[in-house]
Amino acid sequence: MHISQKLAQARAEGKPTFSFEFFPPKTAQGVQNLYDRMDRMHGLGPLFIDITWGAGGRHSQLTCEMVKVAQAVYGLETCMHLTCTDMEKTKLDDALKEAYNAGCTNILALRGDPPREREKWEATAGGFRYAKDLVKYIRDRYGNHFDIGVAGYSEGCEDNGDVDLLIDHLKEKVDAGATFIVTQMFYDTDLFLEWVRKVRAKGIDIPIIPGIMPIHTYAAFMRRANWTKCHIPEHWMKALEPVKNDDVAVREVGKDLVVDMCRKLIDAGILHLHFYTMNLAQATRMVLEDLDIVPDLESPLERPLPWRPSLALNRRDENVRPIFWRNRKASYVARTQDWDEFPNGRWGDARSPAFGELDAYGVGLKGTNEQNIKLWGAPTSIKDISDLFVRYMSKQLDSLPWSEQPIDKEAELIQQELIDLNKRGFLTINSQPAVNGAKSSDLVFGWGPRNGYVYQKAYLEVFVSPEHIAELITRIERDPDLTYYAVNKDGDLKTNSPDGPNAVTWGVFPGKEIVQPTIVETVSFLAWKDEFYRLGQDWANCHSSVSPSRYVIEDLMDTWYLVNIVHNDFMVTHGIFQLFDGLQVEDMEKPMHTTGTPNGDAHANGTTEKTVELNGSNGEKTKIEVASDALKSAASALTNGLNGLKVSN
Amino acid sequence: MHISQKLAQARAEGKPTFSFEFFPPKTAQGVQNLYDRMDRMHGLGPLFIDITWGAGGRHSQLTCEMVKVAQAVYGLETCMHLTCTDMEKTKLDDALKEAYNAGCTNILALRGDPPREREKWEATAGGFRYAKDLVKYIRDRYGNHFDIGVAGYSEGCEDNGDVDLLIDHLKEKVDAGATFIVTQMFYDTDLFLEWVRKVRAKGIDIPIIPGIMPIHTYAAFMRRANWTKCHIPEHWMKALEPVKNDDVAVREVGKDLVVDMCRKLIDAGILHLHFYTMNLAQATRMVLEDLDIVPDLESPLERPLPWRPSLALNRRDENVRPIFWRNRKASYVARTQDWDEFPNGRWGDARSPAFGELDAYGVGLKGTNEQNIKLWGAPTSIKDISDLFVRYMSKQLDSLPWSEQPIDKEAELIQQELIDLNKRGFLTINSQPAVNGAKSSDLVFGWGPRNGYVYQKAYLEVFVSPEHIAELITRIERDPDLTYYAVNKDGDLKTNSPDGPNAVTWGVFPGKEIVQPTIVETVSFLAWKDEFYRLGQDWANCHSSVSPSRYVIEDLMDTWYLVNIVHNDFMVTHGIFQLFDGLQVEDMEKPMHTTGTPNGDAHANGTTEKTVELNGSNGEKTKIEVASDALKSAASALTNGLNGLKVSN
Repeated sequence: MHISQKLAQARAEGKPTFSFEFFPPKTAQGVQNLYDRMDRMHGLGPLFIDITWGAGGRHSQLTCEMVKVAQAVYGLETCMHLTCTDMEKTKLDDALKEAYNAGCTNILALRGDPPREREKWEATAGGFRYAKDLVKYIRDRYGNHFDIGVAGYSEGCEDNGDVDLLIDHLKEKVDAGATFIVTQMFYDTDLFLEWVRKVRAKGIDIPIIPGIMPIHTYAAFMRRANWTKCHIPEHWMKALEPVKNDDVAVREVGKDLVVDMCRKLIDAGILHLHFYTMNLAQATRMVLEDLDIVPDLESPLERPLPWRPSLALNRRDENVRPIFWRNRKASYVARTQDWDEFPNGRWGDARSPAFGELDAYGVGLKGTNEQNIKLWGAPTSIKDISDLFVRYMSKQLDSLPWSEQPIDKEAELIQQELIDLNKRGFLTINSQPAVNGAKSSDLVFGWGPRNGYVYQKAYLEVFVSPEHIAELITRIERDPDLTYYAVNKDGDLKTNSPDGPNAVTWGVFPGKEIVQPTIVETVSFLAWKDEFYRLGQDWANCHSSVSPSRYVIEDLMDTWYLVNIVHNDFMVTHGIFQLFDGLQVEDMEKPMHTTGTPNGDAHANGTTEKTVELNGSNGEKTKIEVASDALKSAASALTNGLNGLKVSN
Repeated sequence: MHISQKLAQARAEGKPTFSFEFFPPKTAQGVQNLYDRMDRMHGLGPLFIDITWGAGGRHSQLTCEMVKVAQAVYGLETCMHLTCTDMEKTKLDDALKEAYNAGCTNILALRGDPPREREKWEATAGGFRYAKDLVKYIRDRYGNHFDIGVAGYSEGCEDNGDVDLLIDHLKEKVDAGATFIVTQMFYDTDLFLEWVRKVRAKGIDIPIIPGIMPIHTYAAFMRRANWTKCHIPEHWMKALEPVKNDDVAVREVGKDLVVDMCRKLIDAGILHLHFYTMNLAQATRMVLEDLDIVPDLESPLERPLPWRPSLALNRRDENVRPIFWRNRKASYVARTQDWDEFPNGRWGDARSPAFGELDAYGVGLKGTNEQNIKLWGAPTSIKDISDLFVRYMSKQLDSLPWSEQPIDKEAELIQQELIDLNKRGFLTINSQPAVNGAKSSDLVFGWGPRNGYVYQKAYLEVFVSPEHIAELITRIERDPDLTYYAVNKDGDLKTNSPDGPNAVTWGVFPGKEIVQPTIVETVSFLAWKDEFYRLGQDWANCHSSVSPSRYVIEDLMDTWYLVNIVHNDFMVTHGIFQLFDGLQVEDMEKPMHTTGTPNGDAHANGTTEKTVELNGSNGEKTKIEVASDALKSAASALTNGLNGLKVSN
C-alpha cells in the first residue's frame, strides 16, 4: 500500500501515526538481531518502516535483501531508500526490480550523501545527477506502482545552506512525480514549521513527514547535531548539558524534549512522525509511550488473518498456512520461498508442496551456543527440560528452540493446562484453544473484516515419551472427534486422519467465501517434523559432545514422539487435555548421562536393546533402535495396521 | 461406483436394495418426461438405474445420451446396456468412450435380442458373436474401470431352452471377466432359486440380481410371458384371470403376487431386486412400498452435498455451485457443460465462467404451451400471478416457470413468510433459511460426513415491482449485515456486495477443509438473470400474442426487478423478511390488458411514458422505457453512483 494513501487514511481518521527508519547492520548476526527487533517493534504499530540505502551504495545489496525479508517474511510495509548519484543505471534497475518483486511499493528517492571529501557531486557514468532525475526515471519505468518520497531540508543540507533554493529544488522533485516528503532530522520545531509554511506557499501540497531523532546518548546527540548542522534550541542545551555524563538521565531528559517537540508538531497538524531509530528500540519506544499514540493493536482491523501475511509480490494472495510454523514464520517463508504459487482460499488436494531444505537461511536454531546455553541452561534430566517448558508457558522465558516468541494471548487461556502437562513430562510445542464463532472483532481471537465470525478447532502439538505413546494413541483413537498424527525422528508415521488437509482456523465474513487460514496436513507435518528434530539436534549441539546435556537432549530426540492432535468438535472446549488424565512421565528427575561412548549411540536406563522391524506398507523394512520395553510397545503401537511386526533381540 | 461394490456394501449391512431399468423412449418429449420420472424415482432410493441398449442398436445413440444425462445432470448411478452382435467395433468403442466420459462405471454386456425372423445369430462384420467376447473386449480395453454385468437365463432364452448349457455359457462369461449377473424376468420363484443353486454349483460366485417385472395390465403381463416363455405359476393365473378386465384390480392383485415373490427371494438371501419398470413408476412403487424396503432418504448419509452432485467424469470434483439454479439443476449442468474444470473447494477469484447460451438443450421452459397453460392458467392481473406463487408455496402446485420441482423441506420452515410475501405481490423465486451449526446428521439441513456441522446464510431471491424497488434497496443498504444484487431485464445491476463470491452454505467436518457448496456471485447471477427473464418470456409466449396473459407476463418481465438478498449474520434467523414490512403492491387485482398494439410495446396504467438515460460507467448510454413514475424512481435508484442521470419527456 502507498504511504501517501496510508497517511490520507490516518488523516481522515484524525489519528497521529509514525514510522521507523532502520539501516543495514554490518554483520550477519547484526542483521538477524535487527530483524528480530523490527518484528518486535512492529508491535508498536508503525504505519511503515524504511531501510536506508547502504551509504555510497556499498551495502546496497543488503538493503535490497532487508527490504525483501521485511516484506516477505515479517509482513512489514517497507519503504526502500535509493540514492542515484553513486549508482549505475543497471544497478538502479536491479534494485527497483528487487523492490518490485518484494511487493515493496514505496521508494525514498535520494541524491545520495556527500562524500567525506566534500568534492562537488558528479553523477556516476550513465547515472543521474539529481534526485529529481531519479524520481522521473522511476515514474517513467513503473508508472504509479511506487509511491515516491523525496528528502526535505528544513535547515539546508550539508552542501547547500540556501533553504529557499532548496525549496525550489524540492518543487522540481515534486513536479517530477514525488508524492511525499521526509525531512532531515531537526530539533527546532519553530524553524521546521516556518519551513513547512514556505513549502506550502510554493504550492507543494504532498504530505510532509518530519524526521525525528530520539536521543540515545549525549555524545551521539552532539555528533549528529554537528554533522547535520541543525539548530539546537537553547533550552535543549540547558536541559541536556547538566546531565551529559549520566546516560540514563540523558535518555530521560532527551525523551521529554523530543516528546515536547512531537506534541508541538501534532498540535500544528503534522500527524505523522518518522523516527530515526538508529536500529535501537528503547529511545523511540519511550517517546511513543509518553506521547500515547501507540495504536490499539488488539484491534483486529490490524489482523487481516490470524498470522501476519507476507507482503511479497508472489505471496500476495497467500492466505493458508500449516499451523506447525505458528511460532517460526521466518522459517516457513524460507522453506516455501521457491514455490510457484501459494495456497489461497484453501490448501487444496493436488498440492504436493516440496518444502525447502533445513540448511536454508533462517531455518536452523538462532544464536550462538553460548547465547543458547545462557537462555536455556544445561539440562541433565527430563525434569530440567520440563522446567524449561514450564518457565516458557509461565512467561518467564521468551523463547524455546521451537518457538521464537513468547506465548500469545490465546495460549494464556489454556496456560494452566499447558503448564500442568509440561510438569508431567508432556512437552507442549504448539497449541490453540477451540473457538465456536467469536466475533471477528474479538480482542483475543478476532481477525478479518468486520461483522464476521471466527472459529478454531482445539489443537495440541506435544512431544511424548516412549513410555506413554501407545496409551495416548489408544485413548485418542477411542474418541471419534479426535484426529492425530504421531511420528518419530525416523519418520514412522501413524495417523487416523482422512486424506487431505484439516482446516483448524476459519472465518465467515459478509459477502465472502469462507477463509481458512490455518490447516493441519500430512506432507507439511512431515516437513515440520524434520525441522523439529533438527532444531532439537541444534540445541543438543550447543553442548559439548560428551556433556550430560548433549546426551539428555539427544536421547529425547532419538526416542520421543512428536504428536499433533485436533479436536474436531469446535463446540467442545478443553476436550484434548483429558486425554492425559493420570499420565505422568516416571523418574523425571533421574539424571541422564552418557555411558561414555562419545558418538551418542548408547542408551540410558540399562534396559536390553532391541530392534523392532517395521514392515512398512511399501514393503521396505525400517529398523528402529529400541531402548526400552516402553519404546518397544510404543513402536508396536505405531505399526498397528501395517503388514507385520517382528521383534528380534 | 461399481454395482458389485455397492451390493457388497448393502449385503454387509444386511439390507435389501433394488434398482430400476428404463428404456429409451421414442420421442423427445418422452425422453424429457422420462428424465423427470427417473429424477423423481431416485427419491425411492434405488442403488442404481440402467438404460437398455436401443434394440438392434437403432436407438443406441439415445442410450448413450441418456446415460450421460442421468449421470451428469441428475447424478444417478447408471449402468449402460450394450449389445455386441449388431454392432461394429468402432461403434462399440464410441459407446464405451461415451460411457467412460459420462463417469459411468457399469456396463451390462449382452449379445443382443434375436431378430423377429428367428434366423441364426451372426456377428456384424468386425463385431462379436457372443457376449463373452464383448466382456473380454471391455476388460482388455478398460481394465477394471467398468463393472461388467451379464445376462442370466433362469428358464432358457428364446433361441435356446437348454438351461444347463446356458449355465455353461454363463460360466464362460464370468471367466471372461463379468462381475455380476442380471436375470431375465420370471414369475416362478422356485424355478429361479433352483437355477441359482445350479449356478453356484458351477462355481459361479458373483452376485445374481433377479429381474422383476411388476404387473401393469393383464394384456401386457400375458404378452411378456408368452414372449419370454417364462413359467407362470398356477396360482398367479388363478388370481389374475378373474379380474383381467379391471386394470386397477389387476395392478392390485399383481402387486400382491410380485410382493410375495420378492419376499421369498429376500428370505432366500437374494437381497437385491432389479425392476423392469417399463418406464412407469406406479407398479414398481406399489411393490416397493408394500415390501417396505424404501430406504430412509432423510438420512444425510445419502446427501454428500446440499445439492445432488453430478457423476460425470470431468465433474467428479465439482462441489461448488451458485444458488440460483437450485431448482433448475439440468439447466445449470447444460449451461456449464463446456467448462474445462469445475469449481471445487471454493468458487475462486480468478474464475470467469462463460455460461452457455440459453438455447442449449434443457435450458428453456419445458412442456407444450397447452400443458403450461393447463398448469399455470391464464393470468390477467398481478393478483393472478401472485396467486400462482402462493399456490406453489402452499404445495398445491408442483412447479413454476422458474422451479422444476415442489418446494422442499427447508422452504417449509419459512413457508408462511414466503406465502405472505407473495400475497403482497413480492414474488419469491428462491430462498433458504439461516442455519447456525446444525449437525451434519440433521434431518432437514444435514449433509456431508458424520460428526460435522452445517451452516447457511439466509437467502431470498424475489421479483420486485418497480413501485417498491427504490424503497427496498434503501432499506437493504441501511443494514450492514445485508448484501444484495438487483437487476432488470436490460442488465442494469446494482449491488453492495464486495468483489468475489459469497459462500451461503458451508460445512465443517472432522479432518477436512471447510466445504462451501453454494455461493452467490456476480457473473453467475447475471447469467441466471438472462435465464430468468428468458423463462418469463417463454411463459408469456405460451399465450397468444394479443392475449391479456401475454401482456401481463411480458409487462412484469419488462419492468420488474430481480433481487437477491443475503443476510450475512447466519446467527440471526428471519432477518430478511422484516425488510418488506408495510410494503404491498397496489392494485394487484386490476386487470392489465394490451392497448391493441400487437407488438407489445404499449404499457399499462395510462401514465406518461418517459425515457431515462443512464450514463453507464463505461460511457455508453442505455435507454430504459419508463412506464410510470414509480419505475422512473426505481431506475434512478439503480443509477445511484453512476455518472449522471438525465430525464427527458
